[in-house]
Amino acid sequence: MGRKPTADEPLLLTPGPLTTTASVKRAMLKDWGSWDEPFRDLNADLRRRLVDISGGGDDYTAVPLQGSGTFVVEAMLGTFIPRGGKVLMLANGAYGERAIKVCERMGRETVAYRTAEDEAPSAEKVAEFLQDETIDYVFMVHCETTSGIRNPVEAVAAVVAEKGRRLLVDAMSAYGALQLDAKVVQYDAIAASANKCLESVPGMGFVICNKSVLAEREGNAHSVSLDLFDQWSYMEKTRQWRFTPPTHVIAAFHQAMLEYEAEGGAPARGARYEVNCERLVNGMRALGFRTFLDDANQAPIIVCFHAPEDPNYDFADFYGRLAKRGYVIYPGKLTAVETFRVGCIGSMGPSDVEGVVATVAEVLAEMGVADGRSHAA
Amino acid sequence: MGRKPTADEPLLLTPGPLTTTASVKRAMLKDWGSWDEPFRDLNADLRRRLVDISGGGDDYTAVPLQGSGTFVVEAMLGTFIPRGGKVLMLANGAYGERAIKVCERMGRETVAYRTAEDEAPSAEKVAEFLQDETIDYVFMVHCETTSGIRNPVEAVAAVVAEKGRRLLVDAMSAYGALQLDAKVVQYDAIAASANKCLESVPGMGFVICNKSVLAEREGNAHSVSLDLFDQWSYMEKTRQWRFTPPTHVIAAFHQAMLEYEAEGGAPARGARYEVNCERLVNGMRALGFRTFLDDANQAPIIVCFHAPEDPNYDFADFYGRLAKRGYVIYPGKLTAVETFRVGCIGSMGPSDVEGVVATVAEVLAEMGVADGRSHAA
Repeated sequence: MGRKPTADEPLLLTPGPLTTTASVKRAMLKDWGSWDEPFRDLNADLRRRLVDISGGGDDYTAVPLQGSGTFVVEAMLGTFIPRGGKVLMLANGAYGERAIKVCERMGRETVAYRTAEDEAPSAEKVAEFLQDETIDYVFMVHCETTSGIRNPVEAVAAVVAEKGRRLLVDAMSAYGALQLDAKVVQYDAIAASANKCLESVPGMGFVICNKSVLAEREGNAHSVSLDLFDQWSYMEKTRQWRFTPPTHVIAAFHQAMLEYEAEGGAPARGARYEVNCERLVNGMRALGFRTFLDDANQAPIIVCFHAPEDPNYDFADFYGRLAKRGYVIYPGKLTAVETFRVGCIGSMGPSDVEGVVATVAEVLAEMGVADGRSHAA
Repeated sequence: MGRKPTADEPLLLTPGPLTTTASVKRAMLKDWGSWDEPFRDLNADLRRRLVDISGGGDDYTAVPLQGSGTFVVEAMLGTFIPRGGKVLMLANGAYGERAIKVCERMGRETVAYRTAEDEAPSAEKVAEFLQDETIDYVFMVHCETTSGIRNPVEAVAAVVAEKGRRLLVDAMSAYGALQLDAKVVQYDAIAASANKCLESVPGMGFVICNKSVLAEREGNAHSVSLDLFDQWSYMEKTRQWRFTPPTHVIAAFHQAMLEYEAEGGAPARGARYEVNCERLVNGMRALGFRTFLDDANQAPIIVCFHAPEDPNYDFADFYGRLAKRGYVIYPGKLTAVETFRVGCIGSMGPSDVEGVVATVAEVLAEMGVADGRSHAA
């Protein structure tokens, strides 16, 4: 950390792919035989570590799946929501909307509870929706990376449990830092990624889920590839993946988990991201930028800033000048407002964040943008 | 090549994951921003190279997809076969059977034309099946890695075209070595892998398909994640992947394609595998082993051998002793006969194959197995 990034070896200030350690990447320098015992051991050890950090103990299992985060979320929705079931979908951004589209495509009936992109859903409102007794599942996104908002999973989970319904969570960009203890938050399944707060490379994700519920879902999924029951039962029987596993990506993830534990797990990682986020927000505010979210809603994962009002500002130009200096930021994804996003996660610390802020200042000066002030400020 | 493998750095004699070059693996030592211009260029260049080797020219496109080969096959079947369509599925092994299961799960009507595991399907028989005018698609596997058999895609394709139907091919383990020229073999789509004859790491595959047919398939797929129309149209518009791409795996694949072209493309690679296969078969026959297939049906991808009849032979023991010496073979996958398999593909040449055969001889002696002779020999 505190490195001097370059255009060719940039610091990725993005919500995945993100910056990984050299040792995580070096773990990919070996070809593993997927049927071979050492690989099966590696895979079993990885799964055990994933269950360990969930806090769920023996009632839970970790089912890894190749593909992007959306593949894992779709696999979770398709495997768990019964055919003919009905699911309440909480949405306040692109990932919530995408999950709705996924359910509609696979023919699961949905009811949407939408809030504005800067507004967290309320548990009380969820309780109202659940007066419809034909709703058996509730789905929500823990940290919606569209805005960077942290949604109140704990409060919603309590209502869902009280009403005797089942919960599915897309914890993709939060898992590993904003931890949900399975002993406290009752869920059937949580979908997460190797490539966000666990700081590995993209190409796989996993679901942490309740074994006894999963055991009842044979043949339920709409897809063979995305069938978590099949993936799990085959893996339990053989300690292998059903289909060719991304062996190098798995080896990198295993290494990332060792580094995660060495750092001190979720408390330490969450604390590092909190510091990154605080330095970033304070530094950018000092340059006149305004965050899209109120501080109370901001998760320490990714921060969404309003674009400066200065007529010399242009996102592509701003992005390109930063990238040339080795700082890769992320475009905004909001429906109505012009923004850009800067990630707080990945293998980086406060000195890296200070580098980001200093470079933003340098680039604004070069562009002839007076400061980061935006219209609504 | 001609290396001395070890238990820790083995030679993978498997049909993927297989042995890749050090330079392909080193291409994974960099973190790429998926939104960043250099990554978009890399991705566009990779797609262009994939279309180039298909021979299809401007009428065809390459749509990469994250996941294993089965994910890609399922995406192809789900995207191309219309809802309410009917597909003739040719099957003579586990991968043909899996594709049938995939179609059944997604609710596409299938008619199966099964042949024995050592018997290629006949084009004449396909013509008979196509008297059923409600069949619009035909699906077949080019090289069925269950047995290593090469199925007659060219002859079947001619019949399918003549009858005015459409062809989908799982060319997973053949593509790049046993090339099907899109100008000669008429297909809607071919599914292939980065991790077989193109010798990259596992974690992604791709479909080569007819653009004008794909353009008509909006909303047809059963799954958002596995929707090749969406994947393609988004990529065409933005030069990005829809969902987080496996950036490291893509960079490795790009490097593998450069090495593929430097070697001389399909003719050179196919020729190397032919030599590997010939040396392997001759060497093993000299030890008394018998191949499962007739030579006429054998593709130079993977060879299936009958297990020796000697009572001292035990597959797990045989496998373990070979693996300890750095040679990782593959178990059999046949339904009725006890076999094992040895791959001919990956970054290896004749001297490596000679190493395999010499080590098999050594291991048999150590196990007290007289020779490779099997019952039916």
